[in-house]
Amino acid sequence: MRALVFDGEAHLRTDYPIPKPGTGEALVAVHLAGVCRTDLEILRGYMGFAGVMGHEFVGSVVEGPPAWKHKRVVGQINCVCGRCDMCRGGLAAHCRNRTVIGISGRDGVFADFVALPAANLHAVPETLSDEQAVFVEPLAAAFQIPRQITIDTAAELVVLGDGRLGQLVARVLKNLCRRVVLVGRHPAKLLHAEKKGIQTVLAGDFRPRAEAPVVVDATGTASGFELAMKAVRPRGTIVLKSTFAPGGAEDEPGPPLDLAPLVINEVNVVGSRCGPFPDALAALAGGQVEVVDLISKRFSLDSGVAALEAAADGETLKVLIEVGPART
Amino acid sequence: MRALVFDGEAHLRTDYPIPKPGTGEALVAVHLAGVCRTDLEILRGYMGFAGVMGHEFVGSVVEGPPAWKHKRVVGQINCVCGRCDMCRGGLAAHCRNRTVIGISGRDGVFADFVALPAANLHAVPETLSDEQAVFVEPLAAAFQIPRQITIDTAAELVVLGDGRLGQLVARVLKNLCRRVVLVGRHPAKLLHAEKKGIQTVLAGDFRPRAEAPVVVDATGTASGFELAMKAVRPRGTIVLKSTFAPGGAEDEPGPPLDLAPLVINEVNVVGSRCGPFPDALAALAGGQVEVVDLISKRFSLDSGVAALEAAADGETLKVLIEVGPART
Repeated sequence: MRALVFDGEAHLRTDYPIPKPGTGEALVAVHLAGVCRTDLEILRGYMGFAGVMGHEFVGSVVEGPPAWKHKRVVGQINCVCGRCDMCRGGLAAHCRNRTVIGISGRDGVFADFVALPAANLHAVPETLSDEQAVFVEPLAAAFQIPRQITIDTAAELVVLGDGRLGQLVARVLKNLCRRVVLVGRHPAKLLHAEKKGIQTVLAGDFRPRAEAPVVVDATGTASGFELAMKAVRPRGTIVLKSTFAPGGAEDEPGPPLDLAPLVINEVNVVGSRCGPFPDALAALAGGQVEVVDLISKRFSLDSGVAALEAAADGETLKVLIEVGPART
Repeated sequence: MRALVFDGEAHLRTDYPIPKPGTGEALVAVHLAGVCRTDLEILRGYMGFAGVMGHEFVGSVVEGPPAWKHKRVVGQINCVCGRCDMCRGGLAAHCRNRTVIGISGRDGVFADFVALPAANLHAVPETLSDEQAVFVEPLAAAFQIPRQITIDTAAELVVLGDGRLGQLVARVLKNLCRRVVLVGRHPAKLLHAEKKGIQTVLAGDFRPRAEAPVVVDATGTASGFELAMKAVRPRGTIVLKSTFAPGGAEDEPGPPLDLAPLVINEVNVVGSRCGPFPDALAALAGGQVEVVDLISKRFSLDSGVAALEAAADGETLKVLIEVGPART
């Protein structure tokens, strides 16, 4: 089969073996996949991953448990053991022995087929297009925030970062509180948010005043986290939603990160990763969150390397990779 | 009066004017004062402070509201406006307009007299010695932790840092949960904790395994925070109890701080600063927490500069400055 493989560099292979699903696993024919910042981090060595890239997808089950046959599905990315302390404690996403599709120890979705545990699958309602469904994984990550913290409906929240994740976070939070302010560096990206009723501020014009009860940092930069520490009010919460490699490409060089403001202002930092698929599916099906306007570009799997390059451009939002027959 | 002043360097002055208490303020004759890491940070420029140093003290009221006259007192260090959003919201310690004794905008306690709002005062019970009472301020900071987070009584907690604050934190937490492990670099300091029934591990022998539900970082170093991220379990809590100047004297040079583990493991970081004086006074009076064994050295105020130097020695625990007639 075709597969976009990273083994020190990203390249398309056409002779990659079709994965053989193990017990309880399903084989999924990928329709459409999305490129995430994490995929770009992997190109820089994140997690030491080697194999088929990609973890955001929608596809159809072609092999596996009968209940799932031919179903259109999306899939959670953490493949878990079910036996460790985390799994037994209800925190399976933190399984001590997990593999993660396209990120850690398991081939991903930038390929004709992917194998994953049937327990990870969620059926996609008929009413959703593939273009909507491919956003379920990152949208679920945004829905993790209200699962982790209490959001005061009267509050004004700040989201830092106008990229793919920041946009989704702003849309989710907008439905939960009085006002969301999205701070970003890209006027064209901010316009997408404004069209959805989100107030926006260019980063250069943003004057943090230690007043926000909740600041979500989706910048993926150390300077973004520093801005979050200035914007959050004493005893407020910073939700850290994206990882950053120190001194990474999107970060300005600067002095070492100083966490003293967290102590002085008794700030609460909440790390936040994967989220609930049902919440994302329901919000898409119910029309509470729109996503397709965030699609900047589409590439065929044969042009997967170009898709990664396009996603690395600071001006693009979601880049999709078309793998199989699309369903709209 | 005599005063240990920092104005770019620390030096004793003998002609410093006795402070004039304002409306609602008291003038306190200092008996005994304690040196804190924050005092040492101030020597390095922290907060841009200039004036009389010191904020840990016990003394006697010599002037002020009649109810306080001649009372032996300790005092909270944040002097607040009572009118800003923080004060009105019950978070006076985060007053937007606060001055802080010996730290920010207000003279401190390494002097014969200090003026502070009577509202900051707490009477010291007869049964407590000055040597115990001088620990109230840092002990209150330790008691802030159970005010901010829920502690599972069955849990094993980890405290990183065998310095003054780490010792007090370990003693407070030991009374609240099954086991506390104190990790430090100084065998002699760890011995103090062991004598109080606290399990200790030399930092070089500590193998973090992402299992602790709560890790308190009282190291004051970036490498300590990195160790905390390795020791805390997924979805666990790091209490950040001490500030550190990046690249500071106690820190090893290293790569920039990488916060990715906070996101991957969805860790909660809780910044924690000043705490409740009543809790500390009650624990000292009730004998739940012992402190006087932590006194390493005593200096007269005339030798205040030497006291600061002694406190900077990694092998010392609490250094006291004797100002007035001691009461034991």
